[in-house]
Amino acid sequence: MKRWNTVTIVGVGLIGGSIGLALRRRGLAENVVGVSRRAVSLDAAHRVGALTQSTQDLKTGVAGAELAIVCTPVAQIVEYVGKVARLATSRTLITDVGSTKEWIVNQVEELLHSGPPSAARYVGSHPIAGSEQSGVSHADAELFQGRVVVVTPTPRTAEDDVAAIAEFWAALGADVRRLSPHEHDAILAATSHVPHVVAAALARSVAEGGWPFSAGGLRDTTRIASSDPELWAQILLTNRDHVLQALEGYHESLTELREALARKDHARLHQVLTQAKRKRDAVGN
Amino acid sequence: MKRWNTVTIVGVGLIGGSIGLALRRRGLAENVVGVSRRAVSLDAAHRVGALTQSTQDLKTGVAGAELAIVCTPVAQIVEYVGKVARLATSRTLITDVGSTKEWIVNQVEELLHSGPPSAARYVGSHPIAGSEQSGVSHADAELFQGRVVVVTPTPRTAEDDVAAIAEFWAALGADVRRLSPHEHDAILAATSHVPHVVAAALARSVAEGGWPFSAGGLRDTTRIASSDPELWAQILLTNRDHVLQALEGYHESLTELREALARKDHARLHQVLTQAKRKRDAVGN
Repeated sequence: MKRWNTVTIVGVGLIGGSIGLALRRRGLAENVVGVSRRAVSLDAAHRVGALTQSTQDLKTGVAGAELAIVCTPVAQIVEYVGKVARLATSRTLITDVGSTKEWIVNQVEELLHSGPPSAARYVGSHPIAGSEQSGVSHADAELFQGRVVVVTPTPRTAEDDVAAIAEFWAALGADVRRLSPHEHDAILAATSHVPHVVAAALARSVAEGGWPFSAGGLRDTTRIASSDPELWAQILLTNRDHVLQALEGYHESLTELREALARKDHARLHQVLTQAKRKRDAVGN
Repeated sequence: MKRWNTVTIVGVGLIGGSIGLALRRRGLAENVVGVSRRAVSLDAAHRVGALTQSTQDLKTGVAGAELAIVCTPVAQIVEYVGKVARLATSRTLITDVGSTKEWIVNQVEELLHSGPPSAARYVGSHPIAGSEQSGVSHADAELFQGRVVVVTPTPRTAEDDVAAIAEFWAALGADVRRLSPHEHDAILAATSHVPHVVAAALARSVAEGGWPFSAGGLRDTTRIASSDPELWAQILLTNRDHVLQALEGYHESLTELREALARKDHARLHQVLTQAKRKRDAVGN
């Protein structure tokens, strides 16, 4: 297992903090450097033991980094990958953890291949391991254990770099898969972004007075509506076309159910509910 | 706290079994008699300790019952309440645990007040305490602790009977609320039945290959799609009008989100997601 000298984490929230904790717990890095504009975030990350060093100055933070991981909200990722590429003094490998990839990866490649030549190399990542919680206080060294992390190379990505990033996530316990940024976004629209839209629409549609008359079903179905609105606005907007298309598929499925109910078609209703149950049962609790 | 002499449970699944276990654990009944057409269900209910006696013969089962609780699937409730009313030899109080109430209560009242005079008295109940699991093997003596149970009297119901049924559920630890059958069905359409439709539609719309690229969000959102299809077909069909109406409200909420996304309206998207988060956060995990 490769041991890194210096890994720099830009943005120390739930994901950044969990990466730091996992690297330290597993002894995978000599130095884990946290960078944030907010001193209070760095203090909190130190408190949970996610970092060995920290700084509010990006240049200092990335100076000697072998690996830099940009863990900011989606909307800031391109900007920070660009800054890291310009400021890094060694041949730094850069990745990010953004939940959408095509919008990010296209812009980053544009930036790296159009400006002044940079020694930095970039591979996109997405650890599918978030939750409705956020903030470093929920960081967990085992957050990536057994979870899928997608790495998203393009024809421009060097194979050595993809392999290094894949090995990095595997060392944190992850099940690493490779997809193109486009494939990633189409799949995640259906498996993550549409469920968020549906949960939010549902939570919002239930009258305040109704909640006491709800059981685990409504709670489960709407739990992710508690996620950070700004984070999710960014995710949805940066994967807009795929989300709108996946919503069409969901809407067709819902319409079939609604129409079977409207025409009191017991057999069809039973059949559709059975199809849903089979798919869901296959996944486990 | 009233101690019942004989409580008869017709249908010993998750809810019936949990009632039996709770009565015995709390010492609230001298005899807990289980009735089922299937010997294997009665054996299972005995094994978990939910019953003191059991029989496959309804007449024997309800002969001396002070209280009879019909816990069959929704579609069979009216039939069994009618049978219990005819077969009961004492002034038996009857309730049921069906998830929809107007369809059931109307038919039961029609039955009790139109046929030959019956000594039996009826009050509808709905313990909001199910789950995606079913069967007596998941029965739990604490299933009703802290959960809302709705009792649904009508102008024809005697106040003493409502009070007795309310006291029964309160003794099992429940938070008892009174609603008319109509009010109950309108509220539950939004808080329980629509979430089931949405979860099923979503589970069904996700391609098999997508599931590995999902996290807790999709699992939570679709968990109740694992519920029993026949049970849910019956619930939806017996509350059809309210469910279709509540689906309209949900659909409006979803459309606002979809349209904000389609026109790239970041501010509106953020606002709608924030409204959803506020409502969901107020409920707790």
